[in-house]
Amino acid sequence: MKIRVGIFGYGNLARGAECAINASPDMELVAVFTRRDPKSLKIATESAAVMSADDVLSMKGKIDVMIVCGGSATDLPHQTPMLAEHFNVIDSFDTHAKIGEHFAAVEGAARKGGTVALISAGWDPGMFSLARLYAEAVLPNGKDYTFWGKGVSQGHSDAIRRVEGVLDAKQYTVPVDAALEAVRSGSCPELSTREKHTRECYVVAKDGADLKKIENDIKTMPNYFADYDTTVNFITEEELREKHSGIPHGGFVIRTGRTGKNGEHSHVIEYSLKLDSNPEFTASVIAAYARAVFRMAKEGSVGCKSVFDVPPAYLSEKSSFELMTSIL
Amino acid sequence: MKIRVGIFGYGNLARGAECAINASPDMELVAVFTRRDPKSLKIATESAAVMSADDVLSMKGKIDVMIVCGGSATDLPHQTPMLAEHFNVIDSFDTHAKIGEHFAAVEGAARKGGTVALISAGWDPGMFSLARLYAEAVLPNGKDYTFWGKGVSQGHSDAIRRVEGVLDAKQYTVPVDAALEAVRSGSCPELSTREKHTRECYVVAKDGADLKKIENDIKTMPNYFADYDTTVNFITEEELREKHSGIPHGGFVIRTGRTGKNGEHSHVIEYSLKLDSNPEFTASVIAAYARAVFRMAKEGSVGCKSVFDVPPAYLSEKSSFELMTSIL
Repeated sequence: MKIRVGIFGYGNLARGAECAINASPDMELVAVFTRRDPKSLKIATESAAVMSADDVLSMKGKIDVMIVCGGSATDLPHQTPMLAEHFNVIDSFDTHAKIGEHFAAVEGAARKGGTVALISAGWDPGMFSLARLYAEAVLPNGKDYTFWGKGVSQGHSDAIRRVEGVLDAKQYTVPVDAALEAVRSGSCPELSTREKHTRECYVVAKDGADLKKIENDIKTMPNYFADYDTTVNFITEEELREKHSGIPHGGFVIRTGRTGKNGEHSHVIEYSLKLDSNPEFTASVIAAYARAVFRMAKEGSVGCKSVFDVPPAYLSEKSSFELMTSIL
Repeated sequence: MKIRVGIFGYGNLARGAECAINASPDMELVAVFTRRDPKSLKIATESAAVMSADDVLSMKGKIDVMIVCGGSATDLPHQTPMLAEHFNVIDSFDTHAKIGEHFAAVEGAARKGGTVALISAGWDPGMFSLARLYAEAVLPNGKDYTFWGKGVSQGHSDAIRRVEGVLDAKQYTVPVDAALEAVRSGSCPELSTREKHTRECYVVAKDGADLKKIENDIKTMPNYFADYDTTVNFITEEELREKHSGIPHGGFVIRTGRTGKNGEHSHVIEYSLKLDSNPEFTASVIAAYARAVFRMAKEGSVGCKSVFDVPPAYLSEKSSFELMTSIL
């Protein structure tokens, strides 16, 4: 009996989730729910239904875990609680500052529905959060640092596209090597925003646009670019398509800490990701946690959870004993 | 009310555990149990008792978690089950091939005693096992590799010390850079034992010993050195003491895997440790898991566990909500 999975929404993340489910022998995709006309949507899994988001409740009892693939800004704050009243759900809510608020809404809905809802699965929040938690617990006398990249920031790319005279753009966040090395040395440096990351922009300008002005508008944009060393490269549409169409990302979580009677010994814990496809990797994490959600629900758990609440064994298809004797 | 911790045994690992407990505001060391004459043992914690191992049962009910610090070869196989009948316990049993057997013995004892027993905490098994499990669950279509070092192997150092003509020795296990790079490239290479690690030996010979013979005896030693590229450096006692008295270690767990409809995207997950003191870091992991054992026991859990069974949040002093809103 496979775990019956639903996908709510059908963008990049959802397509990644579809791949991840199909790569998992113990899971099957039952249905994709879309706000578009279901007839207009062609999905990769022939055996799965494409249904209108409006009809999602008709599948109550027929889906073990619903993967909610909306955006964190406007979709998930209402989609995840709405669905958690009727299904076990998992999302990748990634607005760090609003996780407490999201938790409260989802917790209420999951308690009401008697379901398990896991929020903020992915890699940050997600695998990076785990790296931070484990490292802090093991080396309490220490300090951790998170670096992102090299990778595409969708939000920053969008911000550039809104600049007057810009046709299209891609922005890469790049960790500064010298900062990484300073952190690894165990010196616990205080690093400014500017010292940790640089921002590389590849911009296609409209015909006749003022390139100097575009560059200045980008570099001085508050919150997005003003606090960073930013480089702006103007390229053609062809070059953007050929060299910058991927969605790579990754990063580093590094904690250094001291042990011993007088803190005489230093230790470095480093966790890093290098990802060709940000949405597909995020979706792969979600698929593994969907398995955990199913198991927790089967055991009688109820309520809103995060990756911190999930025993690692629940992510694997293997039994606890098999894990213990094979990869422990 | 602090978590009352006992330490059974008092070698390098136990001294590290003592430091880790004293660095944790929510824990207190109650007693150290030794097979030596308790009067002969001076420990770092003035408030803790030093007691004979024979009197350990007199502390039943007064210790929340017992950290068992014996060796995996001959101590832990009987100490951990013996103690698990009366106390919540944690050990660092690290003979990978015998974990199933150890589990069975400890599980029986913990069920009988109604206790929680966590076995094989540390970094390998332990943090590295977690890195392997998470990476495999998230990237099922992939392959992982574990490299150890650069670090001191106690077992290999001991093996050299048993060679005729050797006064003292230290052995370092060193991962091969080219192998690490090949793994990170995502090419999933098949690597022989020789290709993954080299072994560096620093040997103090007895006066008049046959150095050529010692070198040959080491390099041809089955299981320990014959399958590796081994270098033997003869040094003086002073140099061994000055430059090789530490117990550093570390290593890398790297998994590469593919996602996408046709596996078109490649990903690299890497977890690494660089440790000045192997026993102190191992003990720090154990202290964090001792906190988890206490919580699981309080919740009514019973039986033998591994790090795979422990929700990460249980390792932290912080509440689940605090974790969610601070480091998730």
